[in-house]
Amino acid sequence: MRIMYLVPGPMGRSSAGQAELERRGALLKQYAGPGTEVGIVDVPQGPASIESMYEEYLSIPATAQRAVELEQEGWQAIILGCYGDPGLDALRELVSIPVIGPGEASALVAASLGHRFSIITITESVIASTERQIRNVGVGEKLASVRVVGIPVLELHHDRERTIRATVEQGRRAIEEDRADVLIVGCMSMGFLEIAEAAGQQLGVPFLNPARVALKFAEALVGAGLTHSRRAYHVPPKLATGKVKSAAELLHA
Amino acid sequence: MRIMYLVPGPMGRSSAGQAELERRGALLKQYAGPGTEVGIVDVPQGPASIESMYEEYLSIPATAQRAVELEQEGWQAIILGCYGDPGLDALRELVSIPVIGPGEASALVAASLGHRFSIITITESVIASTERQIRNVGVGEKLASVRVVGIPVLELHHDRERTIRATVEQGRRAIEEDRADVLIVGCMSMGFLEIAEAAGQQLGVPFLNPARVALKFAEALVGAGLTHSRRAYHVPPKLATGKVKSAAELLHA
Amino acid sequence: MRIMYLVPGPMGRSSAGQAELERRGALLKQYAGPGTEVGIVDVPQGPASIESMYEEYLSIPATAQRAVELEQEGWQAIILGCYGDPGLDALRELVSIPVIGPGEASALVAASLGHRFSIITITESVIASTERQIRNVGVGEKLASVRVVGIPVLELHHDRERTIRATVEQGRRAIEEDRADVLIVGCMSMGFLEIAEAAGQQLGVPFLNPARVALKFAEALVGAGLTHSRRAYHVPPKLATGKVKSAAELLHA
Amino acid sequence: MRIMYLVPGPMGRSSAGQAELERRGALLKQYAGPGTEVGIVDVPQGPASIESMYEEYLSIPATAQRAVELEQEGWQAIILGCYGDPGLDALRELVSIPVIGPGEASALVAASLGHRFSIITITESVIASTERQIRNVGVGEKLASVRVVGIPVLELHHDRERTIRATVEQGRRAIEEDRADVLIVGCMSMGFLEIAEAAGQQLGVPFLNPARVALKFAEALVGAGLTHSRRAYHVPPKLATGKVKSAAELLHA
Amino acid sequence: MRIMYLVPGPMGRSSAGQAELERRGALLKQYAGPGTEVGIVDVPQGPASIESMYEEYLSIPATAQRAVELEQEGWQAIILGCYGDPGLDALRELVSIPVIGPGEASALVAASLGHRFSIITITESVIASTERQIRNVGVGEKLASVRVVGIPVLELHHDRERTIRATVEQGRRAIEEDRADVLIVGCMSMGFLEIAEAAGQQLGVPFLNPARVALKFAEALVGAGLTHSRRAYHVPPKLATGKVKSAAELLHA
Amino acid sequence: MRIMYLVPGPMGRSSAGQAELERRGALLKQYAGPGTEVGIVDVPQGPASIESMYEEYLSIPATAQRAVELEQEGWQAIILGCYGDPGLDALRELVSIPVIGPGEASALVAASLGHRFSIITITESVIASTERQIRNVGVGEKLASVRVVGIPVLELHHDRERTIRATVEQGRRAIEEDRADVLIVGCMSMGFLEIAEAAGQQLGVPFLNPARVALKFAEALVGAGLTHSRRAYHVPPKLATGKVKSAAELLHA
Repeated sequence: MRIMYLVPGPMGRSSAGQAELERRGALLKQYAGPGTEVGIVDVPQGPASIESMYEEYLSIPATAQRAVELEQEGWQAIILGCYGDPGLDALRELVSIPVIGPGEASALVAASLGHRFSIITITESVIASTERQIRNVGVGEKLASVRVVGIPVLELHHDRERTIRATVEQGRRAIEEDRADVLIVGCMSMGFLEIAEAAGQQLGVPFLNPARVALKFAEALVGAGLTHSRRAYHVPPKLATGKVKSAAELLHA
Repeated sequence: MRIMYLVPGPMGRSSAGQAELERRGALLKQYAGPGTEVGIVDVPQGPASIESMYEEYLSIPATAQRAVELEQEGWQAIILGCYGDPGLDALRELVSIPVIGPGEASALVAASLGHRFSIITITESVIASTERQIRNVGVGEKLASVRVVGIPVLELHHDRERTIRATVEQGRRAIEEDRADVLIVGCMSMGFLEIAEAAGQQLGVPFLNPARVALKFAEALVGAGLTHSRRAYHVPPKLATGKVKSAAELLHA
Repeated sequence: MRIMYLVPGPMGRSSAGQAELERRGALLKQYAGPGTEVGIVDVPQGPASIESMYEEYLSIPATAQRAVELEQEGWQAIILGCYGDPGLDALRELVSIPVIGPGEASALVAASLGHRFSIITITESVIASTERQIRNVGVGEKLASVRVVGIPVLELHHDRERTIRATVEQGRRAIEEDRADVLIVGCMSMGFLEIAEAAGQQLGVPFLNPARVALKFAEALVGAGLTHSRRAYHVPPKLATGKVKSAAELLHA
Repeated sequence: MRIMYLVPGPMGRSSAGQAELERRGALLKQYAGPGTEVGIVDVPQGPASIESMYEEYLSIPATAQRAVELEQEGWQAIILGCYGDPGLDALRELVSIPVIGPGEASALVAASLGHRFSIITITESVIASTERQIRNVGVGEKLASVRVVGIPVLELHHDRERTIRATVEQGRRAIEEDRADVLIVGCMSMGFLEIAEAAGQQLGVPFLNPARVALKFAEALVGAGLTHSRRAYHVPPKLATGKVKSAAELLHA
Repeated sequence: MRIMYLVPGPMGRSSAGQAELERRGALLKQYAGPGTEVGIVDVPQGPASIESMYEEYLSIPATAQRAVELEQEGWQAIILGCYGDPGLDALRELVSIPVIGPGEASALVAASLGHRFSIITITESVIASTERQIRNVGVGEKLASVRVVGIPVLELHHDRERTIRATVEQGRRAIEEDRADVLIVGCMSMGFLEIAEAAGQQLGVPFLNPARVALKFAEALVGAGLTHSRRAYHVPPKLATGKVKSAAELLHA
Repeated sequence: MRIMYLVPGPMGRSSAGQAELERRGALLKQYAGPGTEVGIVDVPQGPASIESMYEEYLSIPATAQRAVELEQEGWQAIILGCYGDPGLDALRELVSIPVIGPGEASALVAASLGHRFSIITITESVIASTERQIRNVGVGEKLASVRVVGIPVLELHHDRERTIRATVEQGRRAIEEDRADVLIVGCMSMGFLEIAEAAGQQLGVPFLNPARVALKFAEALVGAGLTHSRRAYHVPPKLATGKVKSAAELLHA
């Protein structure tokens, strides 16, 4: 099966970003099961990183456009490469192949592994939106807490050890103070630094890397022949009735 | 006080649209209390109408940009002119003056008038997102139902009588079958056609026009000297730390 | 428009109380918008202050009786002047003009300003009933906590600075320990001492004075032509069927 | 043990009412377990029947006063004789012996007998307050529905067969349409007409008479040596601190 | 009335266990009301104590078998003698007399005595299942916390004073940190040591002994002529249709 | 990877049952991804089919015992082959490899495909327990309804066309009356008859076969290196402390 990881920002614009894209692509290949071809692609326009709802929304138009193309190119599932799942519902309106939100998928898998999970993410600015996201996924009553390491996305790479230490510290507090029994890394950059894998060994509870889990969830859906319901995610009416010919026209219709 | 009604789409692009903008501006002036100056403005880019989550997201970038300018121009509150409140959280991240979402404001006011309210809106494609919106506002347990007239936004004006009849029919079923005791019109175009006012007389329950209610809510907030909490709606970190100089730069930062 | 603030107790019985009534009336005039006439009136019988459910109930018969008269005198809305909203449902059964509960109105407005609000009130004896009140308003999931300054109502005036200090202390703990991002003063006496205004400056989050907010909410309802639903607040059957001629007779019917 | 059933209205004012009081007292004696002395008493003032929140509130002052006396007279538990449990919290603030609300007790017992219960009560005017009552008891998620026979309290006795027929009809709909598996009669007058006993035989599900259940619940609490928590139902502060000498003074304090 | 306390394990296998059975039987006789005959019986097979879900399940087959016999022997109610209520639903499927779960009954009674209750139980291994149990009873929103003394069941007897001290300590923290106003002992062995009675005196809140409360609840149900709904707890279809002749055959059907 | 499907009953006792076991094993091989070895095994003792909670409990002891052996034999995950997930928590207490409950897994996957799902299962006797199961999984707010075809498990095979017709009929009502947008087959026998696949084509919404989905979920967990949390599913204390040497001893410890 062919699964594409879609980065909702122009990561490849710089050479460092291009290298990071390739590094992530290589990790995804490691995570993939036998028989899975996994690609990675970014979009030409969007915010450098996503740390606010405004940046989430800025990322959606170009990403949705790219998702439509990926379906036309024959990919069988798309992983929306941001933990906040920005525009997940819109992408599902526009394509018929499964679109996996790493935030949604990791929350659902976490719900099967314990009774209460906590999310360790980047900055205080995303706590409230993450809580709302999990409630909307439908497993809000299993959310123990959202805790932050207090390191901006673009600085996470500079000192991986510091990020791991801060994650272990917050994970420990989530377990002891918030009674979490499962943890999730709430940021794809932290995911691809394999912070969950490193911190999980020290904490003794399942610690989910959303990149890895999203890929497994995508494989599961494609393998089961399942995709989202069209009664839940309607084709936009102007498209459904032929008033416009493509999603792209909706912006100017 | 000075309150601006911000249409999140390029309504004034056509001459008919320009006339409609003016008609709505005139109604808002009627709704305004003594001492309130109310303006109306649209944005240069965006979808012709909003009937899907994709179109909601498409409307946000230009609208957010305009909101920042309106604050700089000295307006004291902004009404985000779409019932779905698209990007309400993002606008609040970017400006410090109150931003009123008609969906949020009318749901909160409805909660004070009865025990269960229903929303009568346009097409089936927005039912699920409206339910989620109301749950996120925090009054989900008072939502009796979301019902639709089944008429696309851009056709509502063609036959106002038909829209009223369909609204009365759905309102009656909301009252009798879903036990609603308060109704809300879930679409600004229906609002400015004063469908609620016409249908409410026949139904015998309070029927809220979100345009009118949003303006009153804006007047209340400005009059009370209140605006949204910065601990709830954080300034985007890159802006807060000076990494970028303006909201506009975030798209390309 | 003409809005009456109805004190559910015999505040004006003493000369000090009479002076306080007048002081509150003057503040309400300051809070009122252009075109609003606001009055204040007490009732001949009831508890000196309300710090228990028993006292809430004791206040209702005389207050309800007065509300009926106020409607007959042509007032367009009534503010029920106790944060606990005692008998709010009963008053709505008896009159057709809007009856604003300061507790209900401030909770609904707070829900629009942030994600989680805390209420700072007087004594431990009212915590549980305040929590129940907010749940019944319908925004219980947004309630972060109810905290108390531990000062009886009748002593609040003696040392306003102490009340402010205690409020700032509890507000800070609500923000830091309970993750509140909006605060409400949960007592009208604290409201009219403008504790919220004083403490809010030190705390950096919106802090609602329920007296001010209730007046703005009343202006909004009257301005929008809205009142409570008769399908939610039924006229008492004996009155509706003419078995008794007035609300007053229900006590002895 | 000595348990008093306290009617929150002046039932004994007329000779017919006096006879009804005696009839109810005789039934309670039948319901009582071995070793239980059960009395019945009314209050000098209050509404003739309770079909609105206003009438609920009107009943409380005299009833609370009587409850205080009953405790002083050595009764060991009080049953508050109205299904709506008016002022249950206030009575618990004022006395230390158990106060049983028939609505609360029957809802809790119903929760142990099935998964979803419905309440069959008198008139539409009490549906919303009954739903709120059950939510506040804490078992709202087990409430299937509140249905009404549409007969005013004071007419129930005229045609017991009609009341039974209407109850069977609504009970059947509760079972089939609302998926109730347990039923409760939501009115003490219906209770003492033994409508539940008559209708239950035809419906094949447990049907609770709140008079009978409240007495059994009272016996259980007294037998277990339990009463309500003073940390939940605080003595009114003015009483606790000695500022007033008795509950009666609170009205004029 | 005749009520049997059914121990879901082979307590009487050893002579010490036999003595404990007799001691518990004697206490139950003390707790019983006038006119109640109360017996105690164990089962031939099952775990020595129940500290995990696996042990809960191991206890059910023999216990269910015994329950069927007890009904045939003319007992009028069965108390399932484990706080976790293991197999409560299965027993209700198999017999028509009331089956009282001490966990369920004490949670429901606690809900009538205060606003928030905590459960003090044995070991961390049962916290999650106890929380789930209370949610399934339907009063989860009133559960303040589950706290543990950290003493295995089979050691509780060795040092009753230590168990009381640990219970007082956890009870105090439940009151102060979790805002509990009612407490329940979450283990029948602690119940029959009368830990609740001893600790309650020091803590000043109602503290429920589930053994005592379950017996009172059983007396109440039998006294009111009530049992569980057959629409909630269906006879197993193979039994209902006569495909098997007895519950015992279901294991091998 | 090696995944075992564990039938919690003695299916292979008869030759017809043995054939069915083999048929199911062959289907599982079809469902398996590349690199997955999937086995199927039953247990020596247990009910013929599971249509009541009593039968659920009867199935657990032998199944748990077998699960322990399967882990020792080197299997990497176990699928508990009954939609009701009987004893899922107990199995997780006893083994460290992932144990997948088809009910849990399919509900979580359904939650990612739409907003509201319905379960189509066998007989009325399991509706309430299925609703409780889904609530305990944590996605209860997404459950639209549980509907039944009214055919006992052991008769499903006799007339597959009738089962499909009944499923389509109930699925249609779930979509239209209960607003489901995703469906799940709530019975493994229906699953292995591929009723979901047949009915889904006619209904136009995703229809989950729990056998297929459970296998995909198992592959996802093993592929991601995840298993359940030991802080959520504790090793039974007697085992953890060495008081007994094996799970088998717990029955007689």
